[in-house]
Amino acid sequence: MIGVYAGRFDPPTNGHIDIACRAARLFDELVVAVYDLPPERCQFSTDQRVAMLQASLPADAPISVEPFSGSLTDFVRRRGASTIVRGLRAVTDFSAEFDQALMYKDLAPDLEQIYLMTALRYIFLSASRIREVAALGHDVSGFVPAAVAEQLRHRFYSP
Amino acid sequence: MIGVYAGRFDPPTNGHIDIACRAARLFDELVVAVYDLPPERCQFSTDQRVAMLQASLPADAPISVEPFSGSLTDFVRRRGASTIVRGLRAVTDFSAEFDQALMYKDLAPDLEQIYLMTALRYIFLSASRIREVAALGHDVSGFVPAAVAEQLRHRFYSP
Amino acid sequence: MIGVYAGRFDPPTNGHIDIACRAARLFDELVVAVYDLPPERCQFSTDQRVAMLQASLPADAPISVEPFSGSLTDFVRRRGASTIVRGLRAVTDFSAEFDQALMYKDLAPDLEQIYLMTALRYIFLSASRIREVAALGHDVSGFVPAAVAEQLRHRFYSP
Amino acid sequence: MIGVYAGRFDPPTNGHIDIACRAARLFDELVVAVYDLPPERCQFSTDQRVAMLQASLPADAPISVEPFSGSLTDFVRRRGASTIVRGLRAVTDFSAEFDQALMYKDLAPDLEQIYLMTALRYIFLSASRIREVAALGHDVSGFVPAAVAEQLRHRFYSP
Amino acid sequence: MIGVYAGRFDPPTNGHIDIACRAARLFDELVVAVYDLPPERCQFSTDQRVAMLQASLPADAPISVEPFSGSLTDFVRRRGASTIVRGLRAVTDFSAEFDQALMYKDLAPDLEQIYLMTALRYIFLSASRIREVAALGHDVSGFVPAAVAEQLRHRFYSP
Amino acid sequence: MIGVYAGRFDPPTNGHIDIACRAARLFDELVVAVYDLPPERCQFSTDQRVAMLQASLPADAPISVEPFSGSLTDFVRRRGASTIVRGLRAVTDFSAEFDQALMYKDLAPDLEQIYLMTALRYIFLSASRIREVAALGHDVSGFVPAAVAEQLRHRFYSP
Repeated sequence: MIGVYAGRFDPPTNGHIDIACRAARLFDELVVAVYDLPPERCQFSTDQRVAMLQASLPADAPISVEPFSGSLTDFVRRRGASTIVRGLRAVTDFSAEFDQALMYKDLAPDLEQIYLMTALRYIFLSASRIREVAALGHDVSGFVPAAVAEQLRHRFYSP
Repeated sequence: MIGVYAGRFDPPTNGHIDIACRAARLFDELVVAVYDLPPERCQFSTDQRVAMLQASLPADAPISVEPFSGSLTDFVRRRGASTIVRGLRAVTDFSAEFDQALMYKDLAPDLEQIYLMTALRYIFLSASRIREVAALGHDVSGFVPAAVAEQLRHRFYSP
Repeated sequence: MIGVYAGRFDPPTNGHIDIACRAARLFDELVVAVYDLPPERCQFSTDQRVAMLQASLPADAPISVEPFSGSLTDFVRRRGASTIVRGLRAVTDFSAEFDQALMYKDLAPDLEQIYLMTALRYIFLSASRIREVAALGHDVSGFVPAAVAEQLRHRFYSP
Repeated sequence: MIGVYAGRFDPPTNGHIDIACRAARLFDELVVAVYDLPPERCQFSTDQRVAMLQASLPADAPISVEPFSGSLTDFVRRRGASTIVRGLRAVTDFSAEFDQALMYKDLAPDLEQIYLMTALRYIFLSASRIREVAALGHDVSGFVPAAVAEQLRHRFYSP
Repeated sequence: MIGVYAGRFDPPTNGHIDIACRAARLFDELVVAVYDLPPERCQFSTDQRVAMLQASLPADAPISVEPFSGSLTDFVRRRGASTIVRGLRAVTDFSAEFDQALMYKDLAPDLEQIYLMTALRYIFLSASRIREVAALGHDVSGFVPAAVAEQLRHRFYSP
Repeated sequence: MIGVYAGRFDPPTNGHIDIACRAARLFDELVVAVYDLPPERCQFSTDQRVAMLQASLPADAPISVEPFSGSLTDFVRRRGASTIVRGLRAVTDFSAEFDQALMYKDLAPDLEQIYLMTALRYIFLSASRIREVAALGHDVSGFVPAAVAEQLRHRFYSP
């Protein structure tokens, strides 16, 4: 059975990596699907986001990282998967996820969606908060994988 | 008694039509008030949004569709109405509505506001989600009136 | 058109009276329906709750106060009404109301439910909080009608 | 891989059956674990709840129904399972689930918990609401499996 | 300036101790006020709850532990304090706290209320969850002070 | 002890002034820290926002108003303060505040954050709502200090 964990990952956080590793144990293969966006709509290019994920996920887990564009449900079907994995962080997350879950169920009744609760130590982490805090000069190396911390340093602190 | 149901309706969804039809039964006349916006702030022009609503609402119900700009409370008073109708979909909706209700009550203590809960089968529908899903190429004809589905096809799929 | 505003009103608060008065303006007749409960499940008897409401509602408004037992939807139909009025106070209220609204819509699709937001100065009031605060010896006469304040004094402070 | 879907199921609703059927597709075996309670704390005995579930779940799915008492995490480990399945219905559900998820993760870090969103047409269903509505004499046969509807009729309507 | 941190503390958790220690730094003196309850309404007697708090709070901090009954606002004034400290754990907490804050502000406009967010590692902890989990035989020594863990062992595991 | 109450104050509302005055009583000195923003990201310049606050806060309270840029935690430490004051208005506020509180606690474990609930009569006020309502031509002088009302009139109604 194949699962798909999709997102922007702009950049990946420790919370994303935690969800991906836990989800990988539930499937024969987990595809981490990176939403392809035009450069002006993200901090890191699609290639950079794919590369940071590949550098941060365990090499020996059955996880592949792939960019996608267009409809997620179409991508999931093309990849032969039947389950979408999502992470849940907080109550506001939940309302939006709930709406989306219901819409997807209507658009793609053959696909299942499962949710994993983000680990306690990462529940305050989001990619947008990381970007904001890093831009202010804070050290975020405790919140993101080493490969991401290096990219953020490069982006925000280099002369 | 005249009621006003106001919104952007960019585009109207089946959820909007359901609220309007149910609200019409509570008043002698229901005015569906379409917020006039500059073209760069909406997907469909004010004329298009008015026309889509007119084509989608039942012809024999005491409902008129009218554009408005500026203050909603001024429009309500000008139209001789005393009640604003609003649809509620979800918890995040509710918080925002609650704030707005309190502010309006202060600005216009003579006006009443009533809320109808969106029907179960439409609670995941919002105009922004419709635009997003249609733009990805999904068929949304189950979520919007026929006149809207045609406009969306024209907008997103024509060569 | 007849509307029904139902509750336990154990005891009625200023918030209940505010909702009833505003709702009465939307209908030809408003029935305030008092849920009949066995003595061990309420602080005030059904007769006392009906009497406190009658003493607190304006005499010249088209409002009647009636006890009911069993199914609310059956009572609404028996009274020839088609609309249930409910007050909304806060977010936790809203979730419970939403569930109930959906269940009722399924059980009684012919009935409409409308919601009024509680006035700002009453949003923290509930009958259970009034009971709790009065039992602690606080003066609650600013939160309840005079007839209720008197009953509470009688109940909690008399020697 | 074995999954466990635990609850009181007092009584089982269509929402419970939907979650169990969808969860069964994610595992080699799904155990529906029925929380054993003393008679005064439930409407239906543990035996009745087990029997109603067995009569309502598809015979050809890899699902077993088993009572348990004491700690759920101990039961999950004893059964050789590593994943707990939970259904999510609404925002208030979510807050409680979130707290519980974090506590369990601390008590049993080796176990995974996954969440499925309740199908749209069942989101207003809970066992307690079914009991309440059935006790008022409403027909709930559209909300519960046939075997449960029969038990409820027997319980609430028989002379 | 004197602050009051009130609760049932049945039993105290690490989350309570964390809030008390942090609050003590904001005041010249912090009074931890233990709500006196009849034995049938709590797991531990008022004396036991006071003793567990005294054994768990740092001896060198300006913190006293005192039982109280009746109105909290009266107790706060009697103690010469002007500020009530409360801990916030989650969204459902928040709604209830908000209602209470508004009611108190009306009953006692001279008193201030301040809120501290529970530390991340304790946000899933509540006294009721501790009681529930300890009763199931789980080891809760990571969640409560040593003096409380001993009492819980005594209560739930002794032969 | 020094406290810092930070925000954009674009423009200051009566709710902001209420929080600042109440917070000032908890500290020896309260610094109202005005987030410096480029002109295109705010309605009023940093100088104007500082001036409006200075004109609206009581002259005899130990409150200073200062602009800051960059990291708030750095500013707090530079000013010799150890406590950040925040106002809470509603449930959506709370979720965002909670995330931020947890992140800050990780970035700056030496700083404390305390929350004050906004006074009832201001809970629906936010700077963005004031801008929106003033732009529609409504009189907002009941919601903002006199100095702010004058600036808004100048901005939105002058010919």
